[in-house]
Amino acid sequence: MAALSQSHHLHSNCFSRLPTPKSKPLRLSSTRVRMSLQETGPSLAVVGVTGAVGQEFLSVLSDRDFPFRSIKLLASKRSAGKSVSFQNHSFTVEELTADSFNGIDIALFSAGGSISKEFGPIAVEKGAIVVDNSSAFRMVEGVPLVIPEVNPDAMEGIKVGMGRGALIANPNCSTIICLMAATPLHRHAKVKRMVVSTYQAASGAGAAAMHELELQTREVLEGKPPTCNIFKQQYAFNLFSHNAPVLENGYNEEEMKMVKETRKIWNDMDVKVTATCIRVPVMRAHAESVNLQFEKPLDEDTAREILKNAPGIVVIDDRSSNHFPTPLEVSNKDGVAVGRIRRDLSQDGNHGLDIFVCGDQVRKGAALNAVQIAEMLL
Amino acid sequence: MAALSQSHHLHSNCFSRLPTPKSKPLRLSSTRVRMSLQETGPSLAVVGVTGAVGQEFLSVLSDRDFPFRSIKLLASKRSAGKSVSFQNHSFTVEELTADSFNGIDIALFSAGGSISKEFGPIAVEKGAIVVDNSSAFRMVEGVPLVIPEVNPDAMEGIKVGMGRGALIANPNCSTIICLMAATPLHRHAKVKRMVVSTYQAASGAGAAAMHELELQTREVLEGKPPTCNIFKQQYAFNLFSHNAPVLENGYNEEEMKMVKETRKIWNDMDVKVTATCIRVPVMRAHAESVNLQFEKPLDEDTAREILKNAPGIVVIDDRSSNHFPTPLEVSNKDGVAVGRIRRDLSQDGNHGLDIFVCGDQVRKGAALNAVQIAEMLL
Repeated sequence: MAALSQSHHLHSNCFSRLPTPKSKPLRLSSTRVRMSLQETGPSLAVVGVTGAVGQEFLSVLSDRDFPFRSIKLLASKRSAGKSVSFQNHSFTVEELTADSFNGIDIALFSAGGSISKEFGPIAVEKGAIVVDNSSAFRMVEGVPLVIPEVNPDAMEGIKVGMGRGALIANPNCSTIICLMAATPLHRHAKVKRMVVSTYQAASGAGAAAMHELELQTREVLEGKPPTCNIFKQQYAFNLFSHNAPVLENGYNEEEMKMVKETRKIWNDMDVKVTATCIRVPVMRAHAESVNLQFEKPLDEDTAREILKNAPGIVVIDDRSSNHFPTPLEVSNKDGVAVGRIRRDLSQDGNHGLDIFVCGDQVRKGAALNAVQIAEMLL
Repeated sequence: MAALSQSHHLHSNCFSRLPTPKSKPLRLSSTRVRMSLQETGPSLAVVGVTGAVGQEFLSVLSDRDFPFRSIKLLASKRSAGKSVSFQNHSFTVEELTADSFNGIDIALFSAGGSISKEFGPIAVEKGAIVVDNSSAFRMVEGVPLVIPEVNPDAMEGIKVGMGRGALIANPNCSTIICLMAATPLHRHAKVKRMVVSTYQAASGAGAAAMHELELQTREVLEGKPPTCNIFKQQYAFNLFSHNAPVLENGYNEEEMKMVKETRKIWNDMDVKVTATCIRVPVMRAHAESVNLQFEKPLDEDTAREILKNAPGIVVIDDRSSNHFPTPLEVSNKDGVAVGRIRRDLSQDGNHGLDIFVCGDQVRKGAALNAVQIAEMLL
């Protein structure tokens, strides 16, 4: 992967146009480390630290200079004992157990739904505030499902030091990326109906899927049969319907997350959403083609202005040079890019828009959003 | 490309499930050749024979056992003199000139819009029936725009031997693949509005673009900067808005082709269409996510039955094994595959469906459709 992920840095044409994370080198002086490992600040735990999102948790915590008193890196027995480098120090990964959460203020979970279901409540019981990246608790009533730029009020009153634990759910990556762009427009003209088609990266299925895409691509280029371990079919130079299980109604679970999570995050049970989720041979950023139907009129110039002023959004919409958002351009970036903003010719007047959105699935789609939630807890 | 296109054959999981062209070996006995180069049958000309579609014209003519008295292979001065192998014979490519069409009954054009504009009318003048794969004449009033399975009546009365030339336009590849699936449903329940998002292969930009995708992929895997000649940005492990010029209204030309050609082919000026056209790193087959709004109710089981019985359509819709159409599976195939057939939850009752369609862009999207048109001229 090294070569490939690096190439994603090197060859992104408009790399500089997107907002970079607060530019802080990952290698920090020991002074700096002493400063962040200070007496004040919360005690953190990162669950699933050896995974793609777990690793991204660490780099986002560093990039954003997240203050903490102590940090505990947790993973399964299999990974326990491994050493992980963080802020120029070497940490030993500890095995996740019920005792892991003694004295923990904030626990960032990204170890899959079953781990969250088993250990999330235990962590809360012990007084930790859990920010969970899995789908385990997203639709549970009373559990805030939060995109900080969209519905911060949903977690009102939940703070470190309030004397009790709590659960906060991180939405699905495709939902976060879509709603980052759709919400500012929704606030202005109220979205009645949304038709979404996704172009989802390998990273959504984890680091192993990214490795498999690279391996398969090498194999296909050499005329060899592709190795299919993570996905049951060829991914290289191909695309396929999202691998999530397909439900009774014909939608797959990924698509239903977009339908249901949108309603909960917008607190609008009437909004109509349909989605078709497709896996494309791209490494780590998702793209989404979003068709919007509004209750009130909204012309494209107003929409463009609204998006230019929206937090976390970068408008890339240069028609003359045919420069619009691409997954490569947002890879390893915080900003969600929006372009192809245009009046939908298939709707009357200014009641419809088509937009194209790209966001880093590992970063804003997962780790960054969770750390932003954690920042609101301080 | 050899290794890669071959790998597309070898590793397509469900290769056998799609209808293969009339299985006829490309190497034919000289008897067979004498038989097809007989006194009867039309005299053919293939314009742009050295291009990706031009080459596909030849293999489709062979696969379908198209009868002809003589065949003339035409290209630009640059390619003139090259030898092309066809039906086990070696043919010399001739330079395209005004005289090329003397005595030609049917001329298959795929050499770009400007060549069609210059030489199409000349060929017609000389009594040839031109089947043009470019966009030059598609929207010209009086020029039939034909998908044989959809609107054969549009070319009624145009036959070889009617004593005059004529122009027939081959629709845009994305339009053909979309309407192959949408038309049978439209006939049953009348499509009011269609929202399309495409996943388009390199082949749509020609053989050079397919080579560039393969070259870039090798370069990126080696950590080298990708060569960007055909496209101005990295295509390997990336995707981007279709490279067609963007118009005043914010749609690119590819998208407007889908909007306008659908109206003409369906002879329905009221049908509402919006499209977002995206280039994905796939070699030669397009995929399309299509959301349909109907005037009359149409439940998904009826829709599936209608599609199973539709000519040129293969339904691949296995929810339990998550097996749906993929570009790889339809590559080098005639059939257009349809799956993910489901009631659209964002519409009331049975007035909406979501479907996912894949078709070989070079074959049904171009060469096959043109040869099918030619067959109707006999």
